[in-house]
Amino acid sequence: MSEPNFDAIFSAIETKKPHLISLLAEAVAIPSVSAEPERRPDIVRMVEWVKKHLEQLGATCELAQPGDQQLSAGSTIPLPPILLGKLGCDPKKKTLLVYAHLDVQPASREDGWHTEPFTLTEKDGKLFGRGSTDDKFCLEGMEESGSEGLEETLKARKDSFLSDVSFTCISDNYWLGTTKPCLTYGLRGICYFTVEVAGPTQDLHSGIYGGTLYEPMSDLVWVLSQLLSKDGQIMIPGLADHVAPLTETEREMYAKMDFDHDEYAKHINTTKLLKATKEETLMARMRYPSLSVHGIEGAFHGAGAKTVIPCKVTGKFSIRLVPDMKPKVIDELVVKHLNELWAQRGSPNRFNPISDPVLITASTTPTCFSAKHLKIQLFGATAFHSGPAWLADPHGPNFQAGARAIKRVYGVEPDYTREGGSIPVTLTFQELTGAPVMLLPIGANDDMAHSQNEKINVTNLVKGTKTLAAYILELAKA
Amino acid sequence: MSEPNFDAIFSAIETKKPHLISLLAEAVAIPSVSAEPERRPDIVRMVEWVKKHLEQLGATCELAQPGDQQLSAGSTIPLPPILLGKLGCDPKKKTLLVYAHLDVQPASREDGWHTEPFTLTEKDGKLFGRGSTDDKFCLEGMEESGSEGLEETLKARKDSFLSDVSFTCISDNYWLGTTKPCLTYGLRGICYFTVEVAGPTQDLHSGIYGGTLYEPMSDLVWVLSQLLSKDGQIMIPGLADHVAPLTETEREMYAKMDFDHDEYAKHINTTKLLKATKEETLMARMRYPSLSVHGIEGAFHGAGAKTVIPCKVTGKFSIRLVPDMKPKVIDELVVKHLNELWAQRGSPNRFNPISDPVLITASTTPTCFSAKHLKIQLFGATAFHSGPAWLADPHGPNFQAGARAIKRVYGVEPDYTREGGSIPVTLTFQELTGAPVMLLPIGANDDMAHSQNEKINVTNLVKGTKTLAAYILELAKA
Repeated sequence: MSEPNFDAIFSAIETKKPHLISLLAEAVAIPSVSAEPERRPDIVRMVEWVKKHLEQLGATCELAQPGDQQLSAGSTIPLPPILLGKLGCDPKKKTLLVYAHLDVQPASREDGWHTEPFTLTEKDGKLFGRGSTDDKFCLEGMEESGSEGLEETLKARKDSFLSDVSFTCISDNYWLGTTKPCLTYGLRGICYFTVEVAGPTQDLHSGIYGGTLYEPMSDLVWVLSQLLSKDGQIMIPGLADHVAPLTETEREMYAKMDFDHDEYAKHINTTKLLKATKEETLMARMRYPSLSVHGIEGAFHGAGAKTVIPCKVTGKFSIRLVPDMKPKVIDELVVKHLNELWAQRGSPNRFNPISDPVLITASTTPTCFSAKHLKIQLFGATAFHSGPAWLADPHGPNFQAGARAIKRVYGVEPDYTREGGSIPVTLTFQELTGAPVMLLPIGANDDMAHSQNEKINVTNLVKGTKTLAAYILELAKA
Repeated sequence: MSEPNFDAIFSAIETKKPHLISLLAEAVAIPSVSAEPERRPDIVRMVEWVKKHLEQLGATCELAQPGDQQLSAGSTIPLPPILLGKLGCDPKKKTLLVYAHLDVQPASREDGWHTEPFTLTEKDGKLFGRGSTDDKFCLEGMEESGSEGLEETLKARKDSFLSDVSFTCISDNYWLGTTKPCLTYGLRGICYFTVEVAGPTQDLHSGIYGGTLYEPMSDLVWVLSQLLSKDGQIMIPGLADHVAPLTETEREMYAKMDFDHDEYAKHINTTKLLKATKEETLMARMRYPSLSVHGIEGAFHGAGAKTVIPCKVTGKFSIRLVPDMKPKVIDELVVKHLNELWAQRGSPNRFNPISDPVLITASTTPTCFSAKHLKIQLFGATAFHSGPAWLADPHGPNFQAGARAIKRVYGVEPDYTREGGSIPVTLTFQELTGAPVMLLPIGANDDMAHSQNEKINVTNLVKGTKTLAAYILELAKA
């Protein structure tokens, strides 16, 4: 096989910049919010939009129907279809599975957006819009769907659609900083917990009843206050024993990474981070567990003053998992600790600690690039409860191809990072295909995925497209 | 003055029972919810309805316009008019000021009501409906209005409308149990606090950032956990020094009260109350302060799982005040304690403890009874920030008249109670008129004011009307 003409491809992509932006604008304009059932038709529209574009590229597409989604109100609505695409079918070639997602987080102007979230708006070289960086930025196609049903859909196709996958690439995370690209070889997992404290049958007037009863809210804030020390250490006995020990080689990697500790502190608007050094902060994000308290259901949460004693309150927190923490073992440790705290508390209220009570919706999409050197499979959509961490070998052929692509486009060696967040489908792919998975992020760390004023830089969009193209070409050579 | 014919009056009231119930049904059908701006026209309608009834009784009415209400969204709407009524104007007679309120708490079927909340529904001798017991139950008139502006309206009329008030009667609280009537000579006051902890400029993804920063939510739940011991003791240093000492006479009063400790525990659905004995529980409600944590603004509060790190969270709690606690002093003690806790915590987040940040809306109404023995003044509406406790002498002529009325209707001596809740306008009346105030409750303690399935018993409605009539007649004799 002859060496591909990288320069010609890069210059073709450069020429297509306005087209790339207008495609992204079309995609952003479809408010495919998976958390809002009333937006479900928009997700279906998004899927159809992607399918059309894939078929124009010559892909053969299938829409898998994963069934119904159970809503918390007790009703059900159909899950959006899962789009599975194939481009090329030469059995002599390797198969690359490309994967991202097209559903987005909710967004509205009132949340603090400076522009309309579902109108792609360019300003100072940045493209603002919900989904611009998470995850609608790819060249040709992307597709969104709710959450549930992907794993089943994939398992059912283990020996067909997935049988000849040689590599998987997922582009759904971010650089460490704003200038240097990276490849990602690890993800933290997650266990989600709710702690319910129930007392009176209904809310009570704090004037009439206050002082006579054990109030569920006081019990709950105390329990939640006993999970972390004031310097952010997780206070679950035994949990630290399950964290893989740090090796010297690994420690050196953190020292070399392009990461500005002070800039990071400024970015999150604090005068003091939990950790004192760059290396410790990187390790806290990448290779150690963390615990966050997210909120309380059932208590007064509005503005102003209300004097009710809530009768039943439910605290929510989650723990990010790292190797070698197993979700089931961690669940047990946490529930044991919660029950011990409760015994200490001595309250007559009813206590119910639950691990992973609900689905945490994740989402996925096919991304596609029209390289003829590889047979490419495309598709999307998943759901997950808790999930374990993921750790890959950053020295295999998949990562080598990614690194060469980055070198070609950016002229530098990438950092090798691990991501603090969780993309559980990564593990599903690895397990079902038995082939290596790589995360190849395109966006910068200030893109504000999941938050207000999400954006992607025009340069990231264009260079990212070149990188994905070069990666496929490099992989074909491997 | 000849002895009034109590029997004839009681039997006239008995005959009018269907009329009483139909009046109450008309009043309940007007959804005069003061917390919902869109219901404001319903409050005006309620005021007009009462005014019409008062004028039919011969009262001279004035509608005072207290100005505008500032809504949290930044807009304003007009406060409802305050109705001031006079019935009789013989300067040789004493003047009784009768006071209650007509605005109600929000209510909707979905909250767990078994009947339509704004349709009075009779079942097993109980009249269910929002406002049935709080506070639309009086015979002839009642009026509702939002909150703000009453105090100013009253102050401006200190030397006119209020100049010759000899006694005040407010019927806006409840019996201790379900069978024995009481007169109430004390109320707890309230101080309301918010504690804001602010960190990042916007919400963060707990996967990407978790483990590196001091999370505001962890700081806040810890601060809130340090306000009460696990057995419900307030942990604000110095606060207990401001509580008036218990006297032996007072202790004996609690021992004599008609109150079933086990029944109370069952009523609030607990196997263990904070206090072990009837007397201690009564004192905890009536003569000791209490602290309740109401909720958190800014954190995740919905159903399901969300993995965000909230950037700014605001805890809400209040303390019920008793003699001799002065709100200003208590505010200072609490804010000092919060700041000390914060110094201990050592977090770089921004901490802002505020006392009494917002108006707590209260509400009032005129109630009227057409006795000719007294000149009666009628009216309603107030607003308050925090308010101190109130304590009256239960042995003066106002209480004696109330006790004789109860004896006539129920055949028993009333209990003399203090109420755990706050009705700050009580103090306003006492201060502006210089005359004694008495609380004369009509409803039973299971009437569920402010909660789902609020009701008043038919017997309480009828006997309460008789009691109010007898009270006015007894007061005229005093």
